[in-house]
Amino acid sequence: MTSVAIVYHSGFGHTKALAEAVASGVQAVPGVRASLIPVAEAEARAAELDAADALIFGSPTYMGSISAEFAAFKDWTSKRWMAGAWKNKLAAGFTSSAQWSGDKQNTLMQIMTLAMQHGMVWVGLGLPGGYSSSKGSIEDLNRVGASIGAMAQANGDQGVEGIAASDFRTFEALGRRVAEAASRWQSQPLAQAA
Amino acid sequence: MTSVAIVYHSGFGHTKALAEAVASGVQAVPGVRASLIPVAEAEARAAELDAADALIFGSPTYMGSISAEFAAFKDWTSKRWMAGAWKNKLAAGFTSSAQWSGDKQNTLMQIMTLAMQHGMVWVGLGLPGGYSSSKGSIEDLNRVGASIGAMAQANGDQGVEGIAASDFRTFEALGRRVAEAASRWQSQPLAQAA
Amino acid sequence: MTSVAIVYHSGFGHTKALAEAVASGVQAVPGVRASLIPVAEAEARAAELDAADALIFGSPTYMGSISAEFAAFKDWTSKRWMAGAWKNKLAAGFTSSAQWSGDKQNTLMQIMTLAMQHGMVWVGLGLPGGYSSSKGSIEDLNRVGASIGAMAQANGDQGVEGIAASDFRTFEALGRRVAEAASRWQSQPLAQAA
Amino acid sequence: MTSVAIVYHSGFGHTKALAEAVASGVQAVPGVRASLIPVAEAEARAAELDAADALIFGSPTYMGSISAEFAAFKDWTSKRWMAGAWKNKLAAGFTSSAQWSGDKQNTLMQIMTLAMQHGMVWVGLGLPGGYSSSKGSIEDLNRVGASIGAMAQANGDQGVEGIAASDFRTFEALGRRVAEAASRWQSQPLAQAA
Repeated sequence: MTSVAIVYHSGFGHTKALAEAVASGVQAVPGVRASLIPVAEAEARAAELDAADALIFGSPTYMGSISAEFAAFKDWTSKRWMAGAWKNKLAAGFTSSAQWSGDKQNTLMQIMTLAMQHGMVWVGLGLPGGYSSSKGSIEDLNRVGASIGAMAQANGDQGVEGIAASDFRTFEALGRRVAEAASRWQSQPLAQAA
Repeated sequence: MTSVAIVYHSGFGHTKALAEAVASGVQAVPGVRASLIPVAEAEARAAELDAADALIFGSPTYMGSISAEFAAFKDWTSKRWMAGAWKNKLAAGFTSSAQWSGDKQNTLMQIMTLAMQHGMVWVGLGLPGGYSSSKGSIEDLNRVGASIGAMAQANGDQGVEGIAASDFRTFEALGRRVAEAASRWQSQPLAQAA
Repeated sequence: MTSVAIVYHSGFGHTKALAEAVASGVQAVPGVRASLIPVAEAEARAAELDAADALIFGSPTYMGSISAEFAAFKDWTSKRWMAGAWKNKLAAGFTSSAQWSGDKQNTLMQIMTLAMQHGMVWVGLGLPGGYSSSKGSIEDLNRVGASIGAMAQANGDQGVEGIAASDFRTFEALGRRVAEAASRWQSQPLAQAA
Repeated sequence: MTSVAIVYHSGFGHTKALAEAVASGVQAVPGVRASLIPVAEAEARAAELDAADALIFGSPTYMGSISAEFAAFKDWTSKRWMAGAWKNKLAAGFTSSAQWSGDKQNTLMQIMTLAMQHGMVWVGLGLPGGYSSSKGSIEDLNRVGASIGAMAQANGDQGVEGIAASDFRTFEALGRRVAEAASRWQSQPLAQAA
């Protein structure tokens, strides 16, 4: 059984709903199990994180970067780094904010950098996004046009209902992609480079 | 007279049209003059660049970063760097691509990094962007939701006519902002820190 | 009187010592006053931040980005953003970590992005750094080779005594540069672009 | 047979020498073959690139980002992107410059962003770097302290002889790591997410 853990912080429910979409994408792949871990539970559930084949990290974008709650999780992971516990696992990331660009790429770069410090291998979104006028509708997968990870947009005065159906499908696609990659990458350890 | 030079590369005309919008914003400020300099003319017009109070850099986003033509200009600027010719001038940047996010932030970070290597002072877009459902229309200034500089979106199969009127107004606002900042910053040299 | 506030988080004392070096650089400029504000005091001292002509932000680099404590400050600034309280102020940043590169650039990009969201104007380090073998000594200003802001390096098992004298002088130079820029930029408000 | 192509631009010979170190690390892994492809030959050797299991990209850092020559290669890859030719291949990156930090992280972020646009999977350096005073010597692997890819430093007035032996060993380690990952990742296609 391949396992994928989705570690996320959600301030107002958007990121939680998106994390659930990622999980349902993961579970759509035969032989792969998803677990959802709010950052507040990460320390208590460290063994689950250490046992996972892939970790998918999610944070809202607040003032152009990861939330303070996600940052507290990030700092805590230095203990896992000391132990080399996540080396060579797969990693991926997602975020949401109220604007189209909204500096969400900065958030994903931080998450990717965290994964790189841990020696993980990064799986991006892998979807081209709509770019022609015939395709550029709200129904497109990856309508925001992200590459490093998944991005959702919801207006600042709306709750989860403000997230487009296509964004949920995009996040499911990320979960499916990471699950397939984790199956392929399997469990044989990569020899330590050194 | 305060002068602002806009140095840009345009592959298919979008960035040229947007550079012209920036220039018209600059010229809307009394006492400030704009000059448009395609990157292919930068070497020949180096004296204009050296004499300007502010430089605004523009490049399309190709495969997630500045175009090769803009990169050639960037590399050429090492000669201006050696001479310290642009130290303490103001700088700003803009880009466009076919998608909402489309890694345009990466392009602006490169342009900002170039300006920082030259010891310039960076003026961002300074517009909050639409983030509520009442405001989130195509008519909003900064509808893409950028902060470091100005971003435009036009579908991949459209020419200049695919750029929204609000994007043109956003780029004019960037020009106006830099022109006002340049007037304020004026010409007295900042003492060298060292 | 021009005022510069230095807002910082320090986990083990390095960033505090570096913040003090920045402050002494600020105070070396006639007519400019520095105040040091640990992030834990930022909310209580919000009026000081709002009144400052320039804000210099400092955070250690933990796991490749700003610390959780600095991120909590960042998230809190959304209230100042709503009020447009810091628009057009000058901004700058600094960080330290145990390695030469150590993803410190990622930390400075986050801090710069925060400043851009607030509509501030960014002042980089403005020092070329040593790059030739004759100059490449521990005595060089900007020996780490940073551009966006100031970077210090101290070995992971050393306290403040592990920071090189040249790093302290580099951080003083950043303070001096921002103080000079704030004097020049003065207090006249930039017209709102919109 | 697993194959890894190393695509690089070298201005003054440093990046070429480092690319050769990467290649020797690749070839040290049984069953994996390395090919060195200067960017000027990329178009003519496109079939080799398309056939490789992993691509490792290398560029010097000029004025804080990839060189113009590497950027021309990047823009050319839009043809491979249209064909989806590199989707799900492994990718990695390396760079060098005259300073310790020297904005090399910006270069690696551009290269990583390019790989993400192609839907590739990113393998970082995976070496912790020296961070304590007992270890912080010129003999350390990853002495520059990079995470996203490999970074070398050589003084601006030195040729290839200015690159430390430990940098060459670090670049070999990157080659070995990517070769091992490519063997593990093998050739079975990942189902398209969509």
